[in-house]
Amino acid sequence: MSELHVYNTLTRKLEKYEPINPKQTKMYVCGPTVYGDSHLGHAKSYISFDLVFRWLKVAGFNPFYVQNITDVGHLVGDAEEGEDKIQKLSKELASEPMAIAEGFTKSYFDDMDRLNILRPHISPRATGHIPEQLEMIETLISKGFAYESNGSVYFDVKKFSSYGKLSGRKTDELQEGARVEIHEDKRNPLDFALWKKAEANHLMRWKSPFGVGFPGWHIECSAMSMKYLGESFDIHGGGLENQFPHHECEIAQSEAATGKHFVKYWLHNNMVTVNGEKMGKSKGNFVLVKDLFKTYDPMVIRFLVLSSHYRSPIDFSAEGLMSAQSGFERLMNMVGPVLKFEEGREEKPFTQKLILDWFEEFSEAMNDDFNSPRALAVVFNAVKTLNTNPELLVDGGLRSELPSFFRKTVGEVLGLLPENASGKSFEKELDSAMGLILELRTGFRQEKNWSKSDLIRDRLTSGGIVIEDGKEGSKWKIKGS
Amino acid sequence: MSELHVYNTLTRKLEKYEPINPKQTKMYVCGPTVYGDSHLGHAKSYISFDLVFRWLKVAGFNPFYVQNITDVGHLVGDAEEGEDKIQKLSKELASEPMAIAEGFTKSYFDDMDRLNILRPHISPRATGHIPEQLEMIETLISKGFAYESNGSVYFDVKKFSSYGKLSGRKTDELQEGARVEIHEDKRNPLDFALWKKAEANHLMRWKSPFGVGFPGWHIECSAMSMKYLGESFDIHGGGLENQFPHHECEIAQSEAATGKHFVKYWLHNNMVTVNGEKMGKSKGNFVLVKDLFKTYDPMVIRFLVLSSHYRSPIDFSAEGLMSAQSGFERLMNMVGPVLKFEEGREEKPFTQKLILDWFEEFSEAMNDDFNSPRALAVVFNAVKTLNTNPELLVDGGLRSELPSFFRKTVGEVLGLLPENASGKSFEKELDSAMGLILELRTGFRQEKNWSKSDLIRDRLTSGGIVIEDGKEGSKWKIKGS
Repeated sequence: MSELHVYNTLTRKLEKYEPINPKQTKMYVCGPTVYGDSHLGHAKSYISFDLVFRWLKVAGFNPFYVQNITDVGHLVGDAEEGEDKIQKLSKELASEPMAIAEGFTKSYFDDMDRLNILRPHISPRATGHIPEQLEMIETLISKGFAYESNGSVYFDVKKFSSYGKLSGRKTDELQEGARVEIHEDKRNPLDFALWKKAEANHLMRWKSPFGVGFPGWHIECSAMSMKYLGESFDIHGGGLENQFPHHECEIAQSEAATGKHFVKYWLHNNMVTVNGEKMGKSKGNFVLVKDLFKTYDPMVIRFLVLSSHYRSPIDFSAEGLMSAQSGFERLMNMVGPVLKFEEGREEKPFTQKLILDWFEEFSEAMNDDFNSPRALAVVFNAVKTLNTNPELLVDGGLRSELPSFFRKTVGEVLGLLPENASGKSFEKELDSAMGLILELRTGFRQEKNWSKSDLIRDRLTSGGIVIEDGKEGSKWKIKGS
Repeated sequence: MSELHVYNTLTRKLEKYEPINPKQTKMYVCGPTVYGDSHLGHAKSYISFDLVFRWLKVAGFNPFYVQNITDVGHLVGDAEEGEDKIQKLSKELASEPMAIAEGFTKSYFDDMDRLNILRPHISPRATGHIPEQLEMIETLISKGFAYESNGSVYFDVKKFSSYGKLSGRKTDELQEGARVEIHEDKRNPLDFALWKKAEANHLMRWKSPFGVGFPGWHIECSAMSMKYLGESFDIHGGGLENQFPHHECEIAQSEAATGKHFVKYWLHNNMVTVNGEKMGKSKGNFVLVKDLFKTYDPMVIRFLVLSSHYRSPIDFSAEGLMSAQSGFERLMNMVGPVLKFEEGREEKPFTQKLILDWFEEFSEAMNDDFNSPRALAVVFNAVKTLNTNPELLVDGGLRSELPSFFRKTVGEVLGLLPENASGKSFEKELDSAMGLILELRTGFRQEKNWSKSDLIRDRLTSGGIVIEDGKEGSKWKIKGS
């Protein structure tokens, strides 16, 4: 059996995965800023790390997964400048910021659930961890890595010599590149805010040793990840665009505060582009997953994302969606019926040569930095073999182990087999099916074929559907509703 | 039109409802302690206040609704003694307390969503508001209402003369009644903890001016309600069993801290009993709503709860469930078809005498302290009239306004008409319906009745269901899945 290797952005290398504690992998991923509905870019990011989480489980690394919810501190400028994104929206909607955050947090989880993304073990909120953030800021000040300035606190980048090691940027180059702005409070334009003084009109505000203010955007991830995963943990994931400055700043804060190595493996997913440009809320070129769900099964969206590697970009196009749709259908035309083979769902170890080979190839693909397109290719190759050799589908063939094979690969790992069709209600389809049945039944009754008409009624009743024959024809309803 | 009157536990009177600010009602309800799945007692409590919330909306009071999530500080003893409920479970499950809280918070919202309970505007977590709680504790100390003692802080009940005004208990009687226990830290056995010192083995702990500890159970509700609703607000709801000590302590803390009147109207729902004894997790005599959902439509549970007034107890019994089931079915046998009358859903003002009368009676019932059994009786009376006078159902009758009438009363106010059957999936029913259709179609094909067999296929296709005829007979699947 091959071993897991992951591409570590920190070393720019594909490395053998060796968790700090072999008994449990600790994993943190930057979650959403909850000031809008999720778009396809979010879907790619969180499906990618859901794939990582799922494979770590199946591969026996027992992952403990924390993903934050940013409900304060993320400024419109994505860095030091601009208004808090949630506060801005709350003013536009004349609503309490926390009500905005609450609503979009629900919307986020609704969308991710439909994409069959497993919930993290903890989804800590930034506003829920102000004391932890302040404590860390005080540590940084006491160790000389941060300074208070006019009610705000900044991290002193010059003091942290390895600043830039993740993004590979050199501070001196950065400084030349830095736009010349008036930063009265800052010693150095590269310094970043740990705590910002709240102006009178700022809605989200907390008392602190430095006066009333609110946390900077970067500090929450350091404070919350270390609270729940420890000062050093295995995996930190996020979008490529957050590598700098966000993750660079996380490393600086955390390692300055603890003196320990913060994260062993940094994983970054690539983005969704629209005509080559990053899809993003700020850009305004985004497609909401809720809108995609109107036309596409959520599993088609998931299939689309998994068809390319998490470190490759996806350029969004109608063609792409349509080919994902037909690809997913081709897959399910085989997997759907196969899953109906079995009674129960007891987990059997694979014993049949062909299935063992397929699973080995599948595992190799996943062990190669979670290569989902290759893993999908293995599954499609299996489907092709089964289509061309139908004898494999019957007893004496692979029939006994095929369902577990597909459930393990397509289901558990790729997450393409949600229980109960990803919360899809079949109301529409049931409506039309029942309309048809009642029509046919009326036909039989006109032919005085009472046996048939009664058989239909009884069969439906036992299936949980009640038929009522009345003056204005027959009606149907779900039993007990 | 009648005016809303509510029974105020504080005054033990039915009072005319006059919000502090006529433009918006501010409402707080004690939420769950997330260390287990919701049982029928929770369902009664949160359906009751959902009814209050819904009627306040329809009656034009524009309610803003905050309901907390208790994820720390609620001790097994429900008062001063015992281990933190969530920490206890987290030790039993060898899991991080916040992961336990996260899981049961999700479970809580899943259950409440299925019961068609509207989400509050904000669901603040106790652990997410430590600074606000500490700030309030410091205020109480500085004003002389609280004292620090050996790393903990207690509220000095003797200093707050009107302690007992909600529950009507006299402090001297309480003291005689109080079990004689060793409370080394307390000046007075009635004093309650605002902050508790964390022993070495205590998992949930925060730094504070009094040392490392965690908040008492009562303080969170005062801190979070006043943060989001102001120092004085309109409605505070909760279970009767929380009137003392929880709500009594909330009043003492809040009014001592602000010097203002805390809450104008205190509403308390009665409990679910089993053979006369309160249903509760601690008692172990509870029925989980998830288990009830296996047999009953969530709307049957909701109907059961609404069939008695929120201030009356419900004694849980199989008979009760079954009569709720048949009652709900009788209601839906009329409402279901009526809702199919209309195109679109534009809100029409009622003009027809009979409907105006019914809605007036319905409103009177709701305005009489949210009397849902009376409101249901009005609706059933309307159903009866319609059944006995079918001419009212056709054009020229009430046909044009009936759908809005039922949508407003049974839907908006009573919440018994969830969109898409409260997330119910009709997969099971569709399966059996389609099985039947394929059988019938096979019959037609054997009779070489190709036209019928094709008609069936085409009709299904246009309904989103694809039929594939193969060697081993015909299969069906949802289009694009």
